[in-house]
Amino acid sequence: MSNFTTRLKAKIEEKKSFVCVGLDPRLNRIPEQIKEEIVAEYGKTKEAVGKIFLEFNQGIIDAVADYAAAVKPQIAFYEQYGHQGIKAYEETIEYAKKKDLLVIGDAKRNDIGSTAKAYADGHLGEVDFWEEAEVGYGADALTVNGYLGSDGIDPFVEACNQQGKGIFVLVRTSNPSAGELQDLEADNKRIYEVMAELVNDWGEDIKDEDGFSAVGAVIGATYPEEAEELREIMGNAYFLVPGYGAQGAGAKEVVPSFKDGGYGAIVNSARGIIFAYQREPWKDRFSADEYQEAAQAAVEYMREDINTALNEAGKLPW
Amino acid sequence: MSNFTTRLKAKIEEKKSFVCVGLDPRLNRIPEQIKEEIVAEYGKTKEAVGKIFLEFNQGIIDAVADYAAAVKPQIAFYEQYGHQGIKAYEETIEYAKKKDLLVIGDAKRNDIGSTAKAYADGHLGEVDFWEEAEVGYGADALTVNGYLGSDGIDPFVEACNQQGKGIFVLVRTSNPSAGELQDLEADNKRIYEVMAELVNDWGEDIKDEDGFSAVGAVIGATYPEEAEELREIMGNAYFLVPGYGAQGAGAKEVVPSFKDGGYGAIVNSARGIIFAYQREPWKDRFSADEYQEAAQAAVEYMREDINTALNEAGKLPW
Repeated sequence: MSNFTTRLKAKIEEKKSFVCVGLDPRLNRIPEQIKEEIVAEYGKTKEAVGKIFLEFNQGIIDAVADYAAAVKPQIAFYEQYGHQGIKAYEETIEYAKKKDLLVIGDAKRNDIGSTAKAYADGHLGEVDFWEEAEVGYGADALTVNGYLGSDGIDPFVEACNQQGKGIFVLVRTSNPSAGELQDLEADNKRIYEVMAELVNDWGEDIKDEDGFSAVGAVIGATYPEEAEELREIMGNAYFLVPGYGAQGAGAKEVVPSFKDGGYGAIVNSARGIIFAYQREPWKDRFSADEYQEAAQAAVEYMREDINTALNEAGKLPW
Repeated sequence: MSNFTTRLKAKIEEKKSFVCVGLDPRLNRIPEQIKEEIVAEYGKTKEAVGKIFLEFNQGIIDAVADYAAAVKPQIAFYEQYGHQGIKAYEETIEYAKKKDLLVIGDAKRNDIGSTAKAYADGHLGEVDFWEEAEVGYGADALTVNGYLGSDGIDPFVEACNQQGKGIFVLVRTSNPSAGELQDLEADNKRIYEVMAELVNDWGEDIKDEDGFSAVGAVIGATYPEEAEELREIMGNAYFLVPGYGAQGAGAKEVVPSFKDGGYGAIVNSARGIIFAYQREPWKDRFSADEYQEAAQAAVEYMREDINTALNEAGKLPW
């Protein structure tokens, strides 16, 4: 199987889009018509929640598939509903892949040794299963947390190597208190810079034809100066950039995460797209029945917004 | 509901045990007789894996319930098998609670804002569920990773407060490369010391009658000197200490994690107990059919080993 970054670039080129759509379903924000129909059949149960999430996600995936390169289901929103939620997570991944989208599982998993291997096998690889291994969730990439150091990351890198998958390591997050640890300075380097160098080390032996490594980084879009600096440090890493739209960053803020020749980053928006029907500027134009049309309008706008900003910066690769 | 630490101390006193049994099932290490029976009915499917894990865990729980204060299922081993694995995780928690054990979910979850809240609600609290909230996994405590800072932890603390639950924050882990980040020194403090001070802050307003806070710390047992230092810094935190047995630490190494009056720590062993039938010194005495007897012998030994070491150090509280 080809490298994850090779497949990601091809998908970006095909869709002419650097957009990743965050599939973060919330029961109380999903249109009533979807809920009513499923509750009528399954009652107000966790099974119903799983089916509601799946149907909503399928609607979103259908609406955005031509305008986005990838989707990023945030597993927390599924996991909170137990195994019925996880079933919806599995089926969402399956559906997105069928619709020609890459899937980045947002799980921020972390552990050591055989436990990290269990996560890596499950999310990216194949799990121990009698005589033959069995594919797990089948995501194309996974977000991970590197606080435990190399032996927490190695099993994920191994899965990337064997399966043509990718990981995105939390380096600099966009939340207000991210700096409590990430900004501390040790030996003239901030902790997030140390993490960035570890990202380089971890990806050293697993690069594509353009030099992009399978070990990427999560870089919050709300700190463009830091993104620029981190782009310097991690010349070979793909950046997963959350924070566009709902978290306050616009297209300008995400430009520094891209390399000069374009590529090098993928930008995520969740609420701003999937719940566009409830949000400015779309809510006056679309009803709840039109949540798909609203999502499509929002993702199309985001695609153009980013492409325009990249073009102005001389970074649009086509 | 009473505080998590109040319930934990009561359980320790009742069982006269500081032992936590790690429920980390591995398909290829579970006795054949359990697998054969279930495969005959369900085939070699993920559903069968879930049922095998649950039956094995129930056998272990029955065997150790009188000798351990808590169990700690490591969710990675379940999660890798998809929703059928998570179903086994849910049912394992349910069974352990019925058998009078506390349950610490080992998930090392981390995220920010509404996503962290989804994890907190799901694992420790109640999830959004139409008119009424619905209980999630129902664990008594959860391990978490603090790399994202306070706004990644606050939602968990909120769940602790509302539900009488606890969290254990990764501070100093026991893996060889833990120090790559955790040992870096910023402003004359190592990163794990900074994390320890954050643990104090996060637990400040949520203490029991003895001053123990609901925000505890994971402290690898393989570094007793550091445990002693961290015991000084985090006077109010309960320590979850992995690494006894299989990871090379003995009872002596865990003593510094306890406070002078006893209490203050709970010590985990997984493989050394649940797969005792395959391991020294038990494997010559017990067959695979006797995996429960082997687990019971191992947990009884561990309980006595720790109690003896605490007694010698003048720290046994009864």
